[in-house]
Amino acid sequence: MEYRISDSLANLKPSAIREIFKSLTDPTIISFSGGNPSPLSFPVEKMAAISADIFAENASAALQYGITEGYTPLREAVRARLKTRFGIDREGDTTIIVTGGTQGLELTCRTLCNPGDTVIAENPSFIGALNSFRATGCNVKGVTLREDGMDLSELEAILKSDDRVRMIYTIPTFQNPAGTTSTEANRRGVYALAKKYGVMILEDNPYGELRFAGKDVPTIKSMDTEGIVFYCSSFSKILSSGMRVGFLVGPDAVMQKIVVAKQCEDVHTNLFFQMLTYRFMTECDLDAHIRSIQDLYRGKCELMLRSLDEYMPKEVTYTRPEGGLFLWVTLPEKIDMNAFVKEALARKVAVVPGTAFNCDTAAPSPSVRLNYSMPSDENIVRGCKILGELAAEMLCR
Amino acid sequence: MEYRISDSLANLKPSAIREIFKSLTDPTIISFSGGNPSPLSFPVEKMAAISADIFAENASAALQYGITEGYTPLREAVRARLKTRFGIDREGDTTIIVTGGTQGLELTCRTLCNPGDTVIAENPSFIGALNSFRATGCNVKGVTLREDGMDLSELEAILKSDDRVRMIYTIPTFQNPAGTTSTEANRRGVYALAKKYGVMILEDNPYGELRFAGKDVPTIKSMDTEGIVFYCSSFSKILSSGMRVGFLVGPDAVMQKIVVAKQCEDVHTNLFFQMLTYRFMTECDLDAHIRSIQDLYRGKCELMLRSLDEYMPKEVTYTRPEGGLFLWVTLPEKIDMNAFVKEALARKVAVVPGTAFNCDTAAPSPSVRLNYSMPSDENIVRGCKILGELAAEMLCR
Repeated sequence: MEYRISDSLANLKPSAIREIFKSLTDPTIISFSGGNPSPLSFPVEKMAAISADIFAENASAALQYGITEGYTPLREAVRARLKTRFGIDREGDTTIIVTGGTQGLELTCRTLCNPGDTVIAENPSFIGALNSFRATGCNVKGVTLREDGMDLSELEAILKSDDRVRMIYTIPTFQNPAGTTSTEANRRGVYALAKKYGVMILEDNPYGELRFAGKDVPTIKSMDTEGIVFYCSSFSKILSSGMRVGFLVGPDAVMQKIVVAKQCEDVHTNLFFQMLTYRFMTECDLDAHIRSIQDLYRGKCELMLRSLDEYMPKEVTYTRPEGGLFLWVTLPEKIDMNAFVKEALARKVAVVPGTAFNCDTAAPSPSVRLNYSMPSDENIVRGCKILGELAAEMLCR
Repeated sequence: MEYRISDSLANLKPSAIREIFKSLTDPTIISFSGGNPSPLSFPVEKMAAISADIFAENASAALQYGITEGYTPLREAVRARLKTRFGIDREGDTTIIVTGGTQGLELTCRTLCNPGDTVIAENPSFIGALNSFRATGCNVKGVTLREDGMDLSELEAILKSDDRVRMIYTIPTFQNPAGTTSTEANRRGVYALAKKYGVMILEDNPYGELRFAGKDVPTIKSMDTEGIVFYCSSFSKILSSGMRVGFLVGPDAVMQKIVVAKQCEDVHTNLFFQMLTYRFMTECDLDAHIRSIQDLYRGKCELMLRSLDEYMPKEVTYTRPEGGLFLWVTLPEKIDMNAFVKEALARKVAVVPGTAFNCDTAAPSPSVRLNYSMPSDENIVRGCKILGELAAEMLCR
């Protein structure tokens, strides 16, 4: 039977990353391809204790339907943390709980955009978000990501020429996949352009808590005097990704509609884990826990960089992130990126091809993304050695 | 600032029921307005024990990202149960886990329908589903719900005249809000018409396990030789509604696209509770647990019916459900339904106005929905007495 699929979804493919993730059942493969937090980052014992408490004291509420906006104490705790930690405290904004950061991105897009509207994103960018925008029927246009952030003249050129732009999507801090952090000046530039052209900004900050070097740069949301910035993040990288608890902040008038859209998608987010997250935030030392993750990832990132320094031919370049989960490795012209990824997998090292992050899905890419949070220290060294030897070989062919 | 909201969401209002739920913070109100399972139906001790086990044995997996389709052992267990319990076992079908039944309904609609397409639903029907379809940009057309199911000639008239119908949405068993169950002949009629006119059926069966009287009627999905029926249900009414674990079955070609759409919405459903659900299904006696809920609801439904029999003027009629959570009470012409709901609330009894379930949101309704799963036995009797006295008074005015 021939089934007719809706226009927005007909041509959408599953995320290459999640497909790679599915294929990684072979335990002999060293995977640098995930976006997963380290299992060492889950505070299992404390979560288990809180969970037992909730079952003992509050099960009737935790297992029952909740309100769409989220568990009120958790919303308050998130709001308070965003204020002290990220300078986010605009009057007239509302914070809601969402089913992982991805839902926050998707809901913002479907509430602001009609099919055929344009979303601008950094090129490269997080494939999951780009697919969410495409599933809403939006066109995604990429702006080259420089070391200091989006290329502002490219950004303005699109804003000037395309009157269907509704939203600029950006991951300014520890960008996925590039690992770079945009400068304060660049952020102010993006904000000024959004204001000038009357478009919204969707600031995605899933890794913001994971800075292990350098200094914080103010969030774009903290600059938002006009109510044009939506800010999305989650507990996926600091407590548990599998629990799917994230949050979204934005101007109240739009957030009311986003709540209606969320009600239509899943009524509300798993309430038990909302309560668990709230109790962890207020009864445990979240900052100390986050510091331990920062220490862990600092070590892993430095080890990967040292290993790449040791094994990679000097023609291969890579970013040196100050936080987050990813390195972005760029191959010299002589090496075909797709062949590199394929041969690496044959040698049991999985990396994600840069094309997976392109706004223009047909465009080529000379880069691959490497994740350092998941692999063991031993595998980081072994994997980088294999990749380095492969690159050296391919350079000499 | 004036914000522009997308066309599909601009005019959508929050579900009246969930708004009523939010307003029910006054503990002196007797609420017949919820759609919540009884907290007595949550197997708290067993869930707590399994939860402790998962934290002890399998936390790294349970707190980590999972695959979009759902936890494989749970998908298998659901598939097996659907086969033995509901005769659902079509070759070429796929079962996935969704974030509550609502997500299954919403994903099916957005994957099959373009904005402007038509979804046919029973009138009255579940407001949450109707809103999900509207949020996708679909028009909802209602077909009168008779005692034996959808009015088949009305259904065919719409199918004949509207070439944008893509899907028939139906809750054939213990319908929400009406509490009625359609006959096997009616189900075969709906299936035959869908086949004849080349449209899909979305069968929603959240209450199917909650039969406390009468005999099972075959699911429409069990009649599906052509691969035109999607079947959606959840664990909300038998384990926990707050955990948001549901499932969806349909033809593989469409399910692949639905998985992509789900990936864009929330990546996957809370993995910890997927594991917990799987272990409950395989390590505990799910059937015995469900029987205990059936006993509980049989008692509550009978008590509500006896109380209505005693206190309601004979001009007021109501359905006598064989399962599910709801009674549908129809007032005589002399009583204005909206005034009745308002005065009942003033007397501290909350019921849901029938208009909330209308496919045509502007149409009037002579009915109200009563829930018997949540209120205590004492409150069932007291609430029915208050409603009965109010109806009697309003008849004499």
